[in-house]
Amino acid sequence: MKLGFIGTGVMGAAIAGHLLDGGHELFVYNRTKAKTDDLVKKGATWADTPGQVAAQADIIFSMVGYPKDVEEIYFGETGIFSTLTAGKIVVDMTTSTPTLAAKIAVTAKALGATGLDAPVSGGDVGAQNAALTIMVGGDKAAYDKLMPLFELMGKSIHLFGEAGKGQHTKMANQIMIAGTMTGMVEMMTYAKAADLPVADVIQTLSGGGADNWSMENYAPRILAGDYTPGFFAKHFLKDLRIALDEADKMNLELPATKEAKHLYEVMVDDKGLGNDGTQGLIKLYQDK
Amino acid sequence: MKLGFIGTGVMGAAIAGHLLDGGHELFVYNRTKAKTDDLVKKGATWADTPGQVAAQADIIFSMVGYPKDVEEIYFGETGIFSTLTAGKIVVDMTTSTPTLAAKIAVTAKALGATGLDAPVSGGDVGAQNAALTIMVGGDKAAYDKLMPLFELMGKSIHLFGEAGKGQHTKMANQIMIAGTMTGMVEMMTYAKAADLPVADVIQTLSGGGADNWSMENYAPRILAGDYTPGFFAKHFLKDLRIALDEADKMNLELPATKEAKHLYEVMVDDKGLGNDGTQGLIKLYQDK
Repeated sequence: MKLGFIGTGVMGAAIAGHLLDGGHELFVYNRTKAKTDDLVKKGATWADTPGQVAAQADIIFSMVGYPKDVEEIYFGETGIFSTLTAGKIVVDMTTSTPTLAAKIAVTAKALGATGLDAPVSGGDVGAQNAALTIMVGGDKAAYDKLMPLFELMGKSIHLFGEAGKGQHTKMANQIMIAGTMTGMVEMMTYAKAADLPVADVIQTLSGGGADNWSMENYAPRILAGDYTPGFFAKHFLKDLRIALDEADKMNLELPATKEAKHLYEVMVDDKGLGNDGTQGLIKLYQDK
Repeated sequence: MKLGFIGTGVMGAAIAGHLLDGGHELFVYNRTKAKTDDLVKKGATWADTPGQVAAQADIIFSMVGYPKDVEEIYFGETGIFSTLTAGKIVVDMTTSTPTLAAKIAVTAKALGATGLDAPVSGGDVGAQNAALTIMVGGDKAAYDKLMPLFELMGKSIHLFGEAGKGQHTKMANQIMIAGTMTGMVEMMTYAKAADLPVADVIQTLSGGGADNWSMENYAPRILAGDYTPGFFAKHFLKDLRIALDEADKMNLELPATKEAKHLYEVMVDDKGLGNDGTQGLIKLYQDK
């Protein structure tokens, strides 16, 4: 199949590589062209704009940073919709707003095309190992058609409803992680202050009702002083802002998530630590 | 060995039963005498006061409700310390304050005896299956001596330092769980409001970075409308209050845990739902 991939950052490049390895023809675009070099060496074709990707490919994936970047590559002057024609499918894998996902689907439909949202979890390691969780929203027939491609990049793939539902599911995922991350850093802060053997505490807690993925994966990194990003704090903050905006629209109050957003705002905006991994949140507590 | 057990509620009775099954002589006391009936039928001996348990047994376990109950059974007129003599060991398994645990250890030591704190996690099911996690603080020699008894009731057993460190570790455990519980109920609240297939969302999230024990165990109960206690909300609130009091003493601010305590206060004190399980927290969100 003729595929397109727009946004070849760490995760996007890994996913695009799997599509190439799957034997597909691939057209690529990225704001910083150099980040497509490895893919072009492996056989991908550079395109000068998102619109030129969409003109040449039948199925176009995108994975960029923020909703405003998604707006630009879809609706910009040289964006995807400037060339998209009937029968094609666009798949936004960026973690973005459900509202924007629905707008993309509506615009695609008006052109006789189809738009899906398919944000992922699993981070760079999941992307590299083709072990991502893929949360999809949109047309069922298009989802079924894409399944062989999703299977090249992920292990847990599910359709959660119409366009936007993939993004909503990703928001649910981030709300859950806001709880495990804040609980984990406060637990470690307490354990250290109480002069407990923190590594032993973590091992014991991991065997019981307090067990969670964040603790298993990030607590050892914190103990080792490793704040490199599995997932950028600035991106997590973006996600929590989207989640709480959406909650507002649904008239929901989520006070624990709101507190988590506030803490990440202090970390990212006030302390300038947005390029740390999410586990860097503990630095807020260590400062005191 | 001649053992004592004070406080034969659901968990205490199960643990005391394992000690009996281990072939030990057992003296029991409980505020409500009827709750010792099954143990007496199995061969335990009733004692009229905690002091009478301590007079007859060499190693005395206690597991009651609140720190004030611990105060009463240890320091009350007919309490353990009214009769405790040299060479004996007292083990408080109640989740209580590190300060009180240290006070018990000091008082015991002045009598030539030893005091340990050994709060547990794992709930009634863990107690029944002898699969508890036991977090111990206190004298190492006494801990070693008790190990064969701890092994009759638990699977993960660890000494975290001097008296009070078992309680501190349990507080760390509860701080972690405050994060997983608040995150979980807010995630489910969001997912339901967004009209997502919630059971599918939970299954997908369980396979990735949002995975945690609370979600795996309590989310299905919430979906089934089951708010019966695995762990009473009123007891969890007690624990969070202790944790935050201790944090205050150490000059720590734990805003996410504080928010969780506030939410459980609304649930328990304002809404009168303290006898629900901790998963009943979601009712606060459903009310709105």
